[in-house]
Amino acid sequence: MGVCYIKPVTLSGFRDYLPGEAAVRQEIVRVFRETCELFGFVPLETPAVERWDILAKDRETLDVIIYNVQGSKEEGDGTKKGLRFDLTVPLSRVVAANPNLPRLFKRYQAGPVWRGERPQAGRYREFIQCDADIVGTRSPVADAELVRLMGRVFERLNIREYLVRINNRKILNGLPELAGFAGEHLPEVLRILDKLEKEGLPRITSALEESQFLSAPAAGRILEVLKVASGREQWLSALRDIFAGSGVAQEGIGELAEMGRMLVESGLPAENWTFDISIVRGLAYYTGPVFETTLLKCPEMGSVCSGGRYDSLTGVFGLNKPATGISLGLDRFYAALDRIQALPAAHAGPAAVVIAVDPGSLAVAGNLAADLRENQVRTTLYPESRVRDGLAYAKAAGARWALILGENEMTQGTVQVKDLATGEQKTVPRAQVGSVVGG
Amino acid sequence: MGVCYIKPVTLSGFRDYLPGEAAVRQEIVRVFRETCELFGFVPLETPAVERWDILAKDRETLDVIIYNVQGSKEEGDGTKKGLRFDLTVPLSRVVAANPNLPRLFKRYQAGPVWRGERPQAGRYREFIQCDADIVGTRSPVADAELVRLMGRVFERLNIREYLVRINNRKILNGLPELAGFAGEHLPEVLRILDKLEKEGLPRITSALEESQFLSAPAAGRILEVLKVASGREQWLSALRDIFAGSGVAQEGIGELAEMGRMLVESGLPAENWTFDISIVRGLAYYTGPVFETTLLKCPEMGSVCSGGRYDSLTGVFGLNKPATGISLGLDRFYAALDRIQALPAAHAGPAAVVIAVDPGSLAVAGNLAADLRENQVRTTLYPESRVRDGLAYAKAAGARWALILGENEMTQGTVQVKDLATGEQKTVPRAQVGSVVGG
Repeated sequence: MGVCYIKPVTLSGFRDYLPGEAAVRQEIVRVFRETCELFGFVPLETPAVERWDILAKDRETLDVIIYNVQGSKEEGDGTKKGLRFDLTVPLSRVVAANPNLPRLFKRYQAGPVWRGERPQAGRYREFIQCDADIVGTRSPVADAELVRLMGRVFERLNIREYLVRINNRKILNGLPELAGFAGEHLPEVLRILDKLEKEGLPRITSALEESQFLSAPAAGRILEVLKVASGREQWLSALRDIFAGSGVAQEGIGELAEMGRMLVESGLPAENWTFDISIVRGLAYYTGPVFETTLLKCPEMGSVCSGGRYDSLTGVFGLNKPATGISLGLDRFYAALDRIQALPAAHAGPAAVVIAVDPGSLAVAGNLAADLRENQVRTTLYPESRVRDGLAYAKAAGARWALILGENEMTQGTVQVKDLATGEQKTVPRAQVGSVVGG
Repeated sequence: MGVCYIKPVTLSGFRDYLPGEAAVRQEIVRVFRETCELFGFVPLETPAVERWDILAKDRETLDVIIYNVQGSKEEGDGTKKGLRFDLTVPLSRVVAANPNLPRLFKRYQAGPVWRGERPQAGRYREFIQCDADIVGTRSPVADAELVRLMGRVFERLNIREYLVRINNRKILNGLPELAGFAGEHLPEVLRILDKLEKEGLPRITSALEESQFLSAPAAGRILEVLKVASGREQWLSALRDIFAGSGVAQEGIGELAEMGRMLVESGLPAENWTFDISIVRGLAYYTGPVFETTLLKCPEMGSVCSGGRYDSLTGVFGLNKPATGISLGLDRFYAALDRIQALPAAHAGPAAVVIAVDPGSLAVAGNLAADLRENQVRTTLYPESRVRDGLAYAKAAGARWALILGENEMTQGTVQVKDLATGEQKTVPRAQVGSVVGG
């Protein structure tokens, strides 16, 4: 017996962000947006729900993670549809649908995406991606711009200890010819290389030597490439020598050389970027430069910001548009910054709370609150004449000042100003409250 | 024969916002957020997907508009779920689930909601709501704060010609007793009153006189109330007289009187608000003050910003928390501002475009772009050394300046600065470019 109430819970893999966390997340997104605009990117908004045929182009992998969305019979649209799982597919649709966009299209978008994967620790089914993409050019200058953009985002958030690692899929595409194995086995080899950072060179060496697709000399030549590891100028020249016979690899090395020149000119500090032969990224997707970013104090979180060139994206729409993009995963980035105690400061809540002692003082309290807001002081007018509750709210909300007034203060034209940081309370003439609280 | 490509289209009722529009929408949301924070509100983020049982509390009306969301078998969560259709239900869930929130909880949230209604002209199935709510107090001071908040949002957007019309459901709840009809017929009567603005007094008079639930004297007494129409002090005293015998109506009038006092003290200009007996809002939902806002130059768009008190919201979770809220519908608001040519200015795209004449000048161009960005000039580095394409991009992107440099300029330490507004082009020493373009 008894009434049956609904439990106020979120779905598994979904979560709320309460004010303290939400304010910091908003601050990160704000910095991302402003930096994108400083770099000449323009905003784009696309719907959360897209046609299934557009989302599920790559049937094998995607049908599993896309959330199906269905309206009621009354809605009347029987088209199969789903929640977007990234912001790149919608971008490609927009580019294909709007031939009048500038030939060079630099857009940014920050928004949620949904993936119906089995939830793991720290991974959610809804998460926010902050994407910047440049469509319409094959120039490595564009790839360098994306890396510089994200570097600037990090700098603005006061994060200096990070490393962008850059590779080029074209160099990796030169491996079969160089090492002497069939091109069809390249994906297997790349899957092994991709684990270099996580598993270390000895285990990768065994994996290559034990691979059924590779002869012993082939494995040996790949290991030679791996030993070049990471670097800048010397890395480029070492690879130039090794891949002397491979046109595609030389092309890739040349692109990275240009990226490197542009990164130096862009002012990205040398300690924040390097070339790294073990960076692979998504297998079927990338066609040129690829990049990953790790926070040096938190390498165990993996890459918080990655991307690369994907020149074949609009192919499904019958177009051939080159594109390159970078994506900051807000949730993982937040978790990493939280772990290394480097979250940006963000105010959530009032700096001042105005409290009336009695109902007759509420109007004057409201007038004071209006004045403070006019002076850009974040202010809550406590809506009830209860001093104790008002003070408790002010403390819980993290306010610095409680401004208390009742009949006495109204008669004298004063306000009781309580500094909640020190506990000190003093009587201040009404006209001087602004300079005490706002100063 | 031929290849079958996917059509790059959005679903019916869903749309993209291209950069020009997206930038203005972001600007409106930015002003909304900043103003909320100035008023002591804190941000909250909740998932797009919620449990169906939480969304569909009111089965009759809601099952029809809620979008059902389903993961694949691999997702493994069989819970029935759907897309949120407003931001208030998630708020009530958060309040019920987090007993440690401050007793007075002032939160704002701007985000998309989804309703699977048959699409009509200018109405979409995905739209953005900007909500501010105050939970935890029954004081009309809170209702007044919400009205002042939105007034400030309008002022910051340079919109002065708007009118907030305020009523109190408690006054309307006094109608059955006053006019002498059964309380169960109040919804029918309110449905008629709700149409006053749209259909005019003569048609409403007929509707009341023809209503089978109302005797002729009852209809007459309701019409007497309607004749009080709108106003401020005199409106209050007229209704005080008419409803002299109704406790609930007097309570409602008293609350509005307090709201009015607070609005005056808050500095909301007198021409921007009034009391209006014909404001009803959602029938089953509101319990106290209700408000609607129309743009005076665009009354045909209806209310762009409305809300009211809904003290029973957390009831389904077994809680009894008073709350009041206001919601700005971004899409309708944008459409109205667009119609009256009052959209806020928002920059989308670079102010300056740096263009290299030849590949050898790209690095220097990149260095110049970095300097401009350092000076807060929104800058695109055109990624290819093609002057004509670069200029075309700069014009299409709405940039003011094109900065062109090649071998000559590199030798001389200069830049060609073209003012795209006037077409004027001059040679400027490299060190002075910042002051020309940034000034």
